[in-house]
Amino acid sequence: MIRDLCPALANKTYFNYGGQGPLPNPSLEAMVAAWQRIQELGPFTDAVWPFVESTVSGLRRRLGGWLGVEPHRLAFTENVTSGCVLPLWGLPWTPGDELLIGDCEHPGVVAACRELGHRQGLVVRTWAVGDLRGDAASTDAAVLNRLEAALTPRTRLVVLSHLLWNTGQIMPIAGAAETLKGHPAQPWLLVDAAQALGCIPAQAAAQAADIYACTGHKWCCGPEGLGVVALSERLLAESRPTLIGWRSLSHEATADSGFHTDGRRFEVATSCIPLFAGLDQSLRLLEAEGTDQERAARIRQSAGVLWQGLGPIAGLETLLQVPPPAGLVSFALPGLDPPAVVKWLGEQGLWIRSLDDPPCLRACTHICTTEGESQGLMEALATISSN
Amino acid sequence: MIRDLCPALANKTYFNYGGQGPLPNPSLEAMVAAWQRIQELGPFTDAVWPFVESTVSGLRRRLGGWLGVEPHRLAFTENVTSGCVLPLWGLPWTPGDELLIGDCEHPGVVAACRELGHRQGLVVRTWAVGDLRGDAASTDAAVLNRLEAALTPRTRLVVLSHLLWNTGQIMPIAGAAETLKGHPAQPWLLVDAAQALGCIPAQAAAQAADIYACTGHKWCCGPEGLGVVALSERLLAESRPTLIGWRSLSHEATADSGFHTDGRRFEVATSCIPLFAGLDQSLRLLEAEGTDQERAARIRQSAGVLWQGLGPIAGLETLLQVPPPAGLVSFALPGLDPPAVVKWLGEQGLWIRSLDDPPCLRACTHICTTEGESQGLMEALATISSN
Repeated sequence: MIRDLCPALANKTYFNYGGQGPLPNPSLEAMVAAWQRIQELGPFTDAVWPFVESTVSGLRRRLGGWLGVEPHRLAFTENVTSGCVLPLWGLPWTPGDELLIGDCEHPGVVAACRELGHRQGLVVRTWAVGDLRGDAASTDAAVLNRLEAALTPRTRLVVLSHLLWNTGQIMPIAGAAETLKGHPAQPWLLVDAAQALGCIPAQAAAQAADIYACTGHKWCCGPEGLGVVALSERLLAESRPTLIGWRSLSHEATADSGFHTDGRRFEVATSCIPLFAGLDQSLRLLEAEGTDQERAARIRQSAGVLWQGLGPIAGLETLLQVPPPAGLVSFALPGLDPPAVVKWLGEQGLWIRSLDDPPCLRACTHICTTEGESQGLMEALATISSN
Repeated sequence: MIRDLCPALANKTYFNYGGQGPLPNPSLEAMVAAWQRIQELGPFTDAVWPFVESTVSGLRRRLGGWLGVEPHRLAFTENVTSGCVLPLWGLPWTPGDELLIGDCEHPGVVAACRELGHRQGLVVRTWAVGDLRGDAASTDAAVLNRLEAALTPRTRLVVLSHLLWNTGQIMPIAGAAETLKGHPAQPWLLVDAAQALGCIPAQAAAQAADIYACTGHKWCCGPEGLGVVALSERLLAESRPTLIGWRSLSHEATADSGFHTDGRRFEVATSCIPLFAGLDQSLRLLEAEGTDQERAARIRQSAGVLWQGLGPIAGLETLLQVPPPAGLVSFALPGLDPPAVVKWLGEQGLWIRSLDDPPCLRACTHICTTEGESQGLMEALATISSN
């Protein structure tokens, strides 16, 4: 089982999968083996290119399966932010166009949208979803009603995370895409899937979004420094690459070349190939634990156990009024400073994180999380909240 | 010595340092150790941040030394293209501004400038330096005279590689910067240093350029996927970040944050920290071989031996009329197809590369290159050119 392969889980009680997942030993070994093979064959020889190509295309195919899209719609990026922002900068903007951003988006993506707006004369507006704390059905309905109400004739882009990094709620991406299809300007849909891939099934959302940006280093338990973005056929046709390098060009030897027509148009230049081998290995290990539906059910089950256990703790308030739909369990301890709580728990070998907006604490459960770990966290939180 | 630490050099005769350098075993071991330490302490805990911070800042200081600039002027990037292009897109352009590009620049950078020009209404012009094949003094004088002649009142940017990737000539970067200072519009100077860092001393050029973009995976013998760009104080003040992520923000937790005022404003989001440890180790190994002046002298010496040996081969024409100033030795075999020559040499375990513009072959010598290796290449080329 993957848990026993992760040294990071052996010496601590870990609940920060949404920050960074643990790296299994076989994934590190796969990276070392890839580096060794590249040195044996290359590093820059005709003999090494088939190995590089098969490593990259193998992962592209596997991720195409995870995301339910044709592999040619994928672009590899260094991280989820690049996956969000590179295609975004290439869209054909007109001054006055509106960007409609959910109020639970990551500060990096929000700042990038504001900068784009600043340079192109776009209007950036926010749309409230973070105050919804009820069950999935009522949340979905409210999100879609509010989206409908927030759209204007000038809306050209909607930004929404698949799994909100603060409240832990799943957003109705396919429903949002349907709503946008009915809009006269057909706004693009940018989905930050940083918390989604490896935590919840991603296919329906990835198929519905124009930009569905993921990273390998969180719930997928891959190495840091490699992400992937799924792009709609429409986006591939309408967006131009921004950062251009030899990987964007269909004939890399000449600047007169056109751009690739597939996802590679958003790839830039040299990346670290061994990371591709590492992520591929991590995805294989997750596949061995069950389908994405089965893994999501286990994650939800663990999160539910933790959420149930936190409920009775006096002075602790879970953000959601219902069991979490995925692996993010957020809560507040009014009167206590969240970073101080993180530090105190860390001293007991228990690791969660604090968030600023809303000010809260977040514990993540993955398929590796044990009931004993959750029990330990509940007990520690009960102690600190009664002191 | 570094040669004996590189498995890539043990089973082949390697002349593609300008494509990708070999990775020494201690650098791979440093990366593995960094991954293990991150798993032991983290990967996402208060306990791991000091290790991450010291790994990054240690490399930033070391590269500050190699580049002769204050570490705060450096931004880490995934590759040299990102280092060229990210700051470029942030400069305050006015339609009609001219970009003046040397005719030996890499297709990726040229295509990126053209795309920027397309979007911002800029004029892209080319400036011939590739036909200069004589000695350093005459080349320097001709380059600077031609630059002076090519500048117009609308020129806002000059693009020039420090070490030309095709002819192997060193460009007078500090002199070009002086010329630009005398221009009323004070054009920015973008230097592609992909071939320079680790091959020739970089300080004077890095200090003179506005954007001096390097990679760790060529002459520095570091891992692929990590580069660095040195930025002038003027550029830091005048250019806005383009791809924005949490690393660009001075307070990463909030989108209302300003950008870092130092080089980090051009960094984006999660990178692979172990690569920093790997590059640091490779730079230490190079430092142990001598100063940058001493290493450059050895490289030049090896290149001179190869250039001298190629001269007498009937049917072979070296691109330069003088011994190469650095480690790139380019030549043509008229009547033979360059990729076919590469393939044939590869079958003998000798690895060089072909270039398209001008159509030629290129062999690189590094401090690891032995006379026996050069001898083997000369003999093979004599054989193929006489057949």
